[in-house]
Amino acid sequence: MKIIIDAMGGDYAPQAPVEASVIAVKEEGVSIILVGKRREIEEELAKYDYPRDRIEIVNADYVISNHEEPAKAVRRRKDASIVVAANMLKNGEGDALLSMGSTGALLAAGLLIVGRIKGVLRPALATLLPSAKGPKMLIDAGANTNCKAENLVQFAVMGSIYMSNVLSIKNPTVGLISNGEEEGKGDELTRVTHPKLAEAPINFIGNIEGRDVMEGNADVMTCDGFVGNVVLKTVEGMGAVVGREIKDIFKKNIFTKIGALLTMSGINSFKKMMDYREYGGAPLLGTQMPVIKGHGSSDTKAVVSAIRQARKFVDTKIIEKIQANISTE
Amino acid sequence: MKIIIDAMGGDYAPQAPVEASVIAVKEEGVSIILVGKRREIEEELAKYDYPRDRIEIVNADYVISNHEEPAKAVRRRKDASIVVAANMLKNGEGDALLSMGSTGALLAAGLLIVGRIKGVLRPALATLLPSAKGPKMLIDAGANTNCKAENLVQFAVMGSIYMSNVLSIKNPTVGLISNGEEEGKGDELTRVTHPKLAEAPINFIGNIEGRDVMEGNADVMTCDGFVGNVVLKTVEGMGAVVGREIKDIFKKNIFTKIGALLTMSGINSFKKMMDYREYGGAPLLGTQMPVIKGHGSSDTKAVVSAIRQARKFVDTKIIEKIQANISTE
Repeated sequence: MKIIIDAMGGDYAPQAPVEASVIAVKEEGVSIILVGKRREIEEELAKYDYPRDRIEIVNADYVISNHEEPAKAVRRRKDASIVVAANMLKNGEGDALLSMGSTGALLAAGLLIVGRIKGVLRPALATLLPSAKGPKMLIDAGANTNCKAENLVQFAVMGSIYMSNVLSIKNPTVGLISNGEEEGKGDELTRVTHPKLAEAPINFIGNIEGRDVMEGNADVMTCDGFVGNVVLKTVEGMGAVVGREIKDIFKKNIFTKIGALLTMSGINSFKKMMDYREYGGAPLLGTQMPVIKGHGSSDTKAVVSAIRQARKFVDTKIIEKIQANISTE
Repeated sequence: MKIIIDAMGGDYAPQAPVEASVIAVKEEGVSIILVGKRREIEEELAKYDYPRDRIEIVNADYVISNHEEPAKAVRRRKDASIVVAANMLKNGEGDALLSMGSTGALLAAGLLIVGRIKGVLRPALATLLPSAKGPKMLIDAGANTNCKAENLVQFAVMGSIYMSNVLSIKNPTVGLISNGEEEGKGDELTRVTHPKLAEAPINFIGNIEGRDVMEGNADVMTCDGFVGNVVLKTVEGMGAVVGREIKDIFKKNIFTKIGALLTMSGINSFKKMMDYREYGGAPLLGTQMPVIKGHGSSDTKAVVSAIRQARKFVDTKIIEKIQANISTE
């Protein structure tokens, strides 16, 4: 299996993607194609020992930043790392694509270059969020705004397939994010979507509310990408604030530092539960080949998780399963 | 000043509203009218010493629950505590109304009985959320779905007036909750709203994202009530999960219990920062008289905060100021 990685994307590129690739070829049994500025990648690679035939470099001189208009940049910059990588995926030169770079550019490349699965109206970004009951999926986490009911139903179907196959959750529950639990609650979109989800081939449990997100009361949480993006970033932002506050509390003086030592094992397992690096990346579901968005602040460990996830995405034949389920609708 | 309280609303009613009223008449210099089942209220009141002329009971035999269709219930049940209380407010028998009961019933009573300020298209629920930079306002937190740009602009204007007067924040910053910081980001609603907010008589700082909510990067955060409700409940739910996890960590064994003692002062001030009880209730902004929704799980302390807030709401003449600012648009 060959994973194509945009080596220039993310806060720790190319160091983290390169180091993670070295670890992954040894531990995950995959081959890697690193796409980006050859000189920079080679410099990083030179630091490690690894089976030479398992990591390949493909040069790309440009990197699309977060400040560019994504669709325009993807169309114009044929020399951009994400564009070169997506074209290679499309041409069958690899089995999956992973990028820690601009989300917009990855979505545009997924849509414009890799292309949609036939029947999928809009691919969606599916993020795994920590919860009290383990990782849960939020779909769409930001690929699409102004969705229609049909979109949300497809998100729910694709998300269910992913969770049951990649995370081995049997008959995953699906909740529709709304402003109240009762069926009548919601905005125009969710009120129309509710009965359609009830008829879809999924384990629909009805509306869920914001408070259910962290409680983990649904395995798949579906919503419009605008709402999903706000939820995702609210959770991330709150995690950052809480983490900082707790750190400050423990650092205060000698007594609090001893307190930190005494509670360290519990604090560490809590941190692990909340750590996005444990969960890999966010798959883009609905494209013809597996595409995964790694977190922009991914360190080596997070990139390794995302590579592992890409491997599972391919191994469990998610694309074929989505194809089968969407076309039979 | 006379505050009318729906004594039957909330998880700890009538105990918490009654005890809070006794404290408030002594400490806040207000008089209170308690509306609800006379016998139950009298039984609670009998436990305390208080100036008899400052707490009055008005009987109402019915309590609207969270499971009823709010507008229908408010129209039909003239004997409901919230309906009796709202009618008294409308008739000038008190200066402000506070309820810890059904949010929907309070909103319906506010709209149908108390009535809108002339020019206000839709009143909005304004919640104070904890943040790293102190309490910030989320408006609309759930009163309205499918808002228009004009609604969000009015929410921002009303929220700014409240924050500058009741929370004494000079020239409060206003952010529009969206899925990206750039002006072009957003769904149909936010893209149309952005330029209108830029022209409004407020200190508009542009789009904000979910991550800005807990960081406290805007004093007033405006959005559609569907989005606001999801944000509010996501934050509440995450607060509950984090609080529970930390408690479990400290309770684990004798060492972690000592750890808890050593870090207690920091943990307590963090808990205080996150505690909704410190922030009072959520004002309904845009009605002709002050209406405040207390949290459903309000204990005595939270009800006292909400009464204090109601007093400030009246003292600072928010209604007149909203009236002046909306009508001049």
